[in-house]
Amino acid sequence: MSSPTFAVTIMAAGKGTRLKSKRPKVLHEIGGKPLLLHVIAAAKQVVQAGDIYVIVGHEAARVKAAVSTEATHFVLQAEQRGTGHALQEVKAFFTASAITPPDHLLVLSGDVPLIRPETIAAIRDFHLSEGASMTILTATPSDPTGYGRIFRRSPESSEVVAIVEQKDLKPDQRSIREINSGIYAFRTASLFEQLDSLTANNAQGELYLTDVAKLLVKAGERVVAIEANGGVDEVLGANTIAEIMHLDAAMRLDTARRLMAQGVTIFRPETCIIDADVTVAADTVIEPFVQLLGKTAVGADCRIRSYSVIQDSTIGEGVTIRNGCILDHAHIANGAILGPYAHLRPESYIGESAHVGNFVETKTVRLGKGSKANHLTYLGDAVIGTGTNIGAGVITCNYDGVNKHQTTIGDNVFVGSDSALVAPVVLGNGSLIAAGSVVTQDVPEDALAIARGRQETKPGWASSRRERLRKS
Amino acid sequence: MSSPTFAVTIMAAGKGTRLKSKRPKVLHEIGGKPLLLHVIAAAKQVVQAGDIYVIVGHEAARVKAAVSTEATHFVLQAEQRGTGHALQEVKAFFTASAITPPDHLLVLSGDVPLIRPETIAAIRDFHLSEGASMTILTATPSDPTGYGRIFRRSPESSEVVAIVEQKDLKPDQRSIREINSGIYAFRTASLFEQLDSLTANNAQGELYLTDVAKLLVKAGERVVAIEANGGVDEVLGANTIAEIMHLDAAMRLDTARRLMAQGVTIFRPETCIIDADVTVAADTVIEPFVQLLGKTAVGADCRIRSYSVIQDSTIGEGVTIRNGCILDHAHIANGAILGPYAHLRPESYIGESAHVGNFVETKTVRLGKGSKANHLTYLGDAVIGTGTNIGAGVITCNYDGVNKHQTTIGDNVFVGSDSALVAPVVLGNGSLIAAGSVVTQDVPEDALAIARGRQETKPGWASSRRERLRKS
Amino acid sequence: MSSPTFAVTIMAAGKGTRLKSKRPKVLHEIGGKPLLLHVIAAAKQVVQAGDIYVIVGHEAARVKAAVSTEATHFVLQAEQRGTGHALQEVKAFFTASAITPPDHLLVLSGDVPLIRPETIAAIRDFHLSEGASMTILTATPSDPTGYGRIFRRSPESSEVVAIVEQKDLKPDQRSIREINSGIYAFRTASLFEQLDSLTANNAQGELYLTDVAKLLVKAGERVVAIEANGGVDEVLGANTIAEIMHLDAAMRLDTARRLMAQGVTIFRPETCIIDADVTVAADTVIEPFVQLLGKTAVGADCRIRSYSVIQDSTIGEGVTIRNGCILDHAHIANGAILGPYAHLRPESYIGESAHVGNFVETKTVRLGKGSKANHLTYLGDAVIGTGTNIGAGVITCNYDGVNKHQTTIGDNVFVGSDSALVAPVVLGNGSLIAAGSVVTQDVPEDALAIARGRQETKPGWASSRRERLRKS
Repeated sequence: MSSPTFAVTIMAAGKGTRLKSKRPKVLHEIGGKPLLLHVIAAAKQVVQAGDIYVIVGHEAARVKAAVSTEATHFVLQAEQRGTGHALQEVKAFFTASAITPPDHLLVLSGDVPLIRPETIAAIRDFHLSEGASMTILTATPSDPTGYGRIFRRSPESSEVVAIVEQKDLKPDQRSIREINSGIYAFRTASLFEQLDSLTANNAQGELYLTDVAKLLVKAGERVVAIEANGGVDEVLGANTIAEIMHLDAAMRLDTARRLMAQGVTIFRPETCIIDADVTVAADTVIEPFVQLLGKTAVGADCRIRSYSVIQDSTIGEGVTIRNGCILDHAHIANGAILGPYAHLRPESYIGESAHVGNFVETKTVRLGKGSKANHLTYLGDAVIGTGTNIGAGVITCNYDGVNKHQTTIGDNVFVGSDSALVAPVVLGNGSLIAAGSVVTQDVPEDALAIARGRQETKPGWASSRRERLRKS
Repeated sequence: MSSPTFAVTIMAAGKGTRLKSKRPKVLHEIGGKPLLLHVIAAAKQVVQAGDIYVIVGHEAARVKAAVSTEATHFVLQAEQRGTGHALQEVKAFFTASAITPPDHLLVLSGDVPLIRPETIAAIRDFHLSEGASMTILTATPSDPTGYGRIFRRSPESSEVVAIVEQKDLKPDQRSIREINSGIYAFRTASLFEQLDSLTANNAQGELYLTDVAKLLVKAGERVVAIEANGGVDEVLGANTIAEIMHLDAAMRLDTARRLMAQGVTIFRPETCIIDADVTVAADTVIEPFVQLLGKTAVGADCRIRSYSVIQDSTIGEGVTIRNGCILDHAHIANGAILGPYAHLRPESYIGESAHVGNFVETKTVRLGKGSKANHLTYLGDAVIGTGTNIGAGVITCNYDGVNKHQTTIGDNVFVGSDSALVAPVVLGNGSLIAAGSVVTQDVPEDALAIARGRQETKPGWASSRRERLRKS
Repeated sequence: MSSPTFAVTIMAAGKGTRLKSKRPKVLHEIGGKPLLLHVIAAAKQVVQAGDIYVIVGHEAARVKAAVSTEATHFVLQAEQRGTGHALQEVKAFFTASAITPPDHLLVLSGDVPLIRPETIAAIRDFHLSEGASMTILTATPSDPTGYGRIFRRSPESSEVVAIVEQKDLKPDQRSIREINSGIYAFRTASLFEQLDSLTANNAQGELYLTDVAKLLVKAGERVVAIEANGGVDEVLGANTIAEIMHLDAAMRLDTARRLMAQGVTIFRPETCIIDADVTVAADTVIEPFVQLLGKTAVGADCRIRSYSVIQDSTIGEGVTIRNGCILDHAHIANGAILGPYAHLRPESYIGESAHVGNFVETKTVRLGKGSKANHLTYLGDAVIGTGTNIGAGVITCNYDGVNKHQTTIGDNVFVGSDSALVAPVVLGNGSLIAAGSVVTQDVPEDALAIARGRQETKPGWASSRRERLRKS
């Protein structure tokens, strides 16, 4: 007998009215990515991507676009008529698409982003071992007010006899603290059988999945509960922006703590913004107010100074990134020194021990080993060799208003300060550009290029002018 | 019968010795403005500006200068001889200025900045409804040590029989937690009658307003108390800089929370500095360490990235402000993109979908729709049309050492990189400036201007020089 | 009889395995300097530098190099075989170096950085007054689990009968909360006598200094305990990077609080990074996210705006430092205005009321009184007089690829924007440089220098080009 099949369905159709936002709730972000993507990522640790069904509704197109690379199936719940109705749509989707439904269905919430793969696996395993038709993930918050409460057959029993909503609790039942998290596993056949019996006899006129528990109990099927062991935060959703921000800070601080435990020094860790996928090797020092975002990887023995923001970049070993640097999809080799206030845009490759200094911008640039561009410079669409010095204020004129052109600079070139290099142009190895030149023609190896006006000095002119201005 | 008249008097004569500061206490700032201005602003919600009397003394001229636009009357308390003495000066001021005193006088403290208009109105209304000669605003802190305690006729009574200072409390009275906030309403006639009877029989040799309560009770007049319902913080002053800083953080965090409740996403809200008068539309995202100051207004769907400081500026919808931008009295139209590290000084008007990029400074500039100035540029005193591209390193030479001059650039102009535009100068629509040019004369529409040295190349010169330097 | 002599020995040989770091534990930093340097600094307040013996072992060369300017004697513990073994090495060092051992020896830990000089003095004095052979500094944490417990003869007695390690505690002894801090004073002769009797009969196979207590008690010598009165934090070491970071934040926040109590306004003090040796005069305002590092001294009435980092610099009175300035060993005279985003590197001397503006870098520069360099400028190796204006985009070309050269600019000079000054070069008093010039020759007083291409204008050229490009 083959092992039973599982699929995951994720509720992502709601608006999140309390957020007061046009953006669908599940697209609000923590840790640098939408709530829904966190849930999908956790689900993928337990089932195949092809077994994930995302239920979309409010701003369905926008939600689908945001997660299209991560999920395969989208079930449209055009009207949002409750959680039970959402599962009716899933049932209809299986029928319409002629996909064989899985033996069991896990139901997750797209706005409960801290759910861990371990917990999803735990509910799956418990569901199977209990031979249940429905398994409810529960939690025990200190204040359960507002949540549906779990009534077990006995305190030690896994069996649930009822889920009672807050408003239906008798006074002496209000102290029951075990609550329904809204995360479930179902035997698909049992679920689908009961879905059609749901009614909207409630104030909202919605169909509730919790009523399936009632129907199953009535039908004599087994409904059980398992408590999440990752704590209450793991299974509670965020209903306001302030709550989402709280989850964001918690998730990123966890990452900082994990890195510190691995030998990374992070001063004022609560002020750093570090995404979960970032890696940092031991003995790197991160100063306060640093941001390491996306898939950034930082090697050992680096120092990243305050106010720097590094997005999806690769940093080698022994790199110094001074204050206020901004890196986006940049690649920095060992021993390089950046900043302060260097701005490295995509496709910036900075060679070993190279320097990029203050108020310097790079974009689609290769800067060779030991080369330097230290002051007030714009390098765009340029390939620069090793041991070359780019003076202060040098600008690659890579754009002619229509197209971008390439600047090629060899090894050991000295580009004098305040020069403009009008691309396309090639400066040969060992060449020298006089300060203040506007270089429009290629410069051969070892040649000098000079392209500037000749100095004229007019004695007394300045004092005469002052005299004139004083009189006027 | 016309309704009784009210005026507000605000105590602002003290030095604030514990601050160890030359700056008068009431001029220390929270939320971007002096403590005293917060009190005046609250008072103005309840009475006319013309009915506010600010009592100044220590550094009176400096205090008056700081709030002169907000308040009408200043009563000088040349020597600071206590709160009772301050009110004697108010009485004398009415006499000297021949202003008819109001029927009732509210007494506020210039160093209690969180007082709410609702609370001022509440004490006024309670004072009238109780027909009292003196009404005391009280609070009940968890630790009342050091404050004067309120003795009511009975726990349920509004009537006060005594205010007893800490040092005069009997041991069994020390547990009384209701304290005198120092904020009062008086029937003016009753107050003025008793003021002359105050004596300075105390260690400080000062005249205390609390003694008026004693005198009124003795005279059989009605003294009542009302507890502030905005919490203890609202009525307690700050006595040290650390306490003032605490109020500042609390006030600004309140603002962040209010904006989040309105649909604004604010990552790490406790690290953002947002002044109370700032408005932000829903669905704008504010990253950590951002400052929105003064009367800044931000539209919907913007993203304001970390370390940006925006002072008294107007930001349209869908604007992206990258890291580290500094805006001061700037105006940014919809869809514009700024930064990182753009510095927009006063009178910068950035058009729809225009770009101002890294290390660019603007001042008294109009940048037209879709125009771009993306790198290392200074634009001062310039009007720039639509669809124009300002290359990297371009500088408007607007200052000749004596006067500022204007640069006028038309639509669809291409200003090559590293050009200097010597104002006054006009670049016509569709004109093109060659890279590295120093433009001193107007350029007609559709013309090319080129103003740079011609390139000379000297083969082998650089290697010969290296040879020479090696030998020397 | 002369007073007894004391020396201090500091344990700094350990690796700190739990840090997961190649860097030796005592070289991890808080408050801007290594843990070990904090301990040495405290010890120096109590004994002469020449009486401090630092025991090094793991990465001994690196540790010695890091503190070589601060300590005189290094005792090598080549293998780390326990605290008792470390003191055996100290004994051997005295013998080998023929230094007369002190009468008494204080033993400190290099990873207990918050130890105060007062506490070191207190244990010394208590040790002498008690006539003890060994004095143990103790603390009473809320959770003593894991620490060796102090057993006194009676609760009131100073006399210790045993130190019992956690694993050897009987169940009813686990509630004893007084613990051994690992900081001791010894009568040197008594210590040295017992050291040879230590045995490594324990799981780690190490020699423990705590066993000396046992031996001394057995020998009938006096062993006493004194509790640290600076709180538990003072005597507990940090064992993880997260704990070290916690000490760092605590130490720097203490400094911020101390400055606020002296009249300095520090907004969001918990976000500022202020080193212990920094001084700031009253009435200076420090905005959030500011860093004052090393031996920086700031005068009165300054305003230091957010994101600025000031290292080892001297700031006069009434100085304004705008957002994002970076100063390193700079000297700023009264009334100067910097930034935003000014970068002042070492040997920058900024004169009274001078201005250094946005995106300006200085290095080895003297800028005279009232002179201005406000935009996008690099000033290196320059002396500039008073009242001089350096235009936007001006660059001193101080480097020729081999040597640095000096630029000398007089008083009241006007350097037009976008000029390059090719050093060595002298601009005389009152001279004027035309915008966009490349100045290679000295300019006499009051002369005009102009060195740029002449403008050529080609009517219709730009529109023809657009036509060509459209067709191609």
